[in-house]
Amino acid sequence: MRKKLTFYFDFSSAYSYVAQARMDAVFAGLDVDILWRPILLGIIFRENGWTPVAPGTAKGDYTFHDVERCVRKEGLPLRWPETFPFNGMLAARLFYALEDEQAVAFARAVFHAAFGEGRDVANPDVLAELLAAVGADVAAATERSGLDAVKAWLREETTAAMAAGVFGAPSFVTDGELFWGADRMEDARDWLARGGW
Amino acid sequence: MRKKLTFYFDFSSAYSYVAQARMDAVFAGLDVDILWRPILLGIIFRENGWTPVAPGTAKGDYTFHDVERCVRKEGLPLRWPETFPFNGMLAARLFYALEDEQAVAFARAVFHAAFGEGRDVANPDVLAELLAAVGADVAAATERSGLDAVKAWLREETTAAMAAGVFGAPSFVTDGELFWGADRMEDARDWLARGGW
Repeated sequence: MRKKLTFYFDFSSAYSYVAQARMDAVFAGLDVDILWRPILLGIIFRENGWTPVAPGTAKGDYTFHDVERCVRKEGLPLRWPETFPFNGMLAARLFYALEDEQAVAFARAVFHAAFGEGRDVANPDVLAELLAAVGADVAAATERSGLDAVKAWLREETTAAMAAGVFGAPSFVTDGELFWGADRMEDARDWLARGGW
Repeated sequence: MRKKLTFYFDFSSAYSYVAQARMDAVFAGLDVDILWRPILLGIIFRENGWTPVAPGTAKGDYTFHDVERCVRKEGLPLRWPETFPFNGMLAARLFYALEDEQAVAFARAVFHAAFGEGRDVANPDVLAELLAAVGADVAAATERSGLDAVKAWLREETTAAMAAGVFGAPSFVTDGELFWGADRMEDARDWLARGGW
C-alpha cells in the first residue's frame, strides 16, 4: 500500500521554508504521498502556553543564526520579512481553496516570497499576485478562501495536527509517528523506508 | 592546523547519551580533536528561565518517545533512571578530576549506567564503581573531585559554554559556530569538512 506522509507547516515558520526546499530530495525514490498541510501554529502555541523564540535570548539568537546557516547550506535566498513572525492565516486559507497540485505550487511561492524576498504575505494583494503566478483563478480562489467550509478545514487540520502530537513546525507524521524539525526529515525517510524500527 | 570541536553535554541529558554513541562514526575521518566538556545545564536553564521538558506536555511526550526511537535506531540499550532529570554534578566533577582519555571512558561509562541501565549516577558509590571499571584510582579521583580547582573548572566550562551561546545539550562548538542537538552533528561535521559555508 502506498504510504502517506503529512507535512504540517505554518507559512510563518522559517524552518518550514528550509524543509520544503530540502524535502523532495530527502524523500526521493520512496513510494510515498506527501500531504502538505498548513496549520495555524499560533493556536497550538497558545494551547501549549508557548511564545515564538525571540531575538536577544540565547535560543532566539541561535535560531536566527541557524536558519541563516541552513538556508545558505541549501543555496536558498533569505531575506527576513519586516514583520516576523507574520500571520499566515490568509495564505493557509487560500491553500485549502486550491486543488492539490496548484496548492503545493502556491505554498512554495508563498515561502519563496516570504523568506526568499522578505515580502509581506499577510497582504492579500501580494497573495493575489502569487496566485496568478501559479496559474490559479485569483477571483475564484479568493472567494473560496472566505467560505466557512474552507475556514473550518484549516481549523480542523490544526486540530488534527495537535491530536497527532504536533507542537511545532515543520512536523512530519507517518504511520502515527511524529518527527519534529527540518533536521529530522532523514529519520522520517528512514522510518518510511524500513517500515519503522 | 588541527581543528577542535567542543562537545558540551550534561550527564542528565538523554540526547547527549544518543550523541556520544553516534559521535565517533559521524566525525570519523576528520582531522579534529573532540573535547568532551560536561557542563551544568541546570545553571544555564536557570539563567534562561527554562525548565526541562516534562511528561504530560506535547513536547515532553514527544521528547521521551523520540529519545526511545533514537536509541532504538542506534541499537543502544535504554532504561530510564528512576530520578530524571538527575543531578550530574558529582559525575562532572569526577570527569574533570581524571586525565583526558580516562575522563572520556568514564563519561561513556556514566552515560551507559544512567541511560542504558537506569542506575543512579548521582550516587557516589555507583560513581566509584564506574571509576574502578575504567581503571581509575578511585580514592585519588574522588579526592581530586572535591578540590576547589576542580569545582571551579566545572563552573568555568559552564560559563564558557554560555558565552559560546549554549542553551541546551548536547551542543557542538567549532570555530565559533554552535550546533545544538544530537541531530545536528552531521552539520557540524560538514562545517568542519568544508571549513564552513
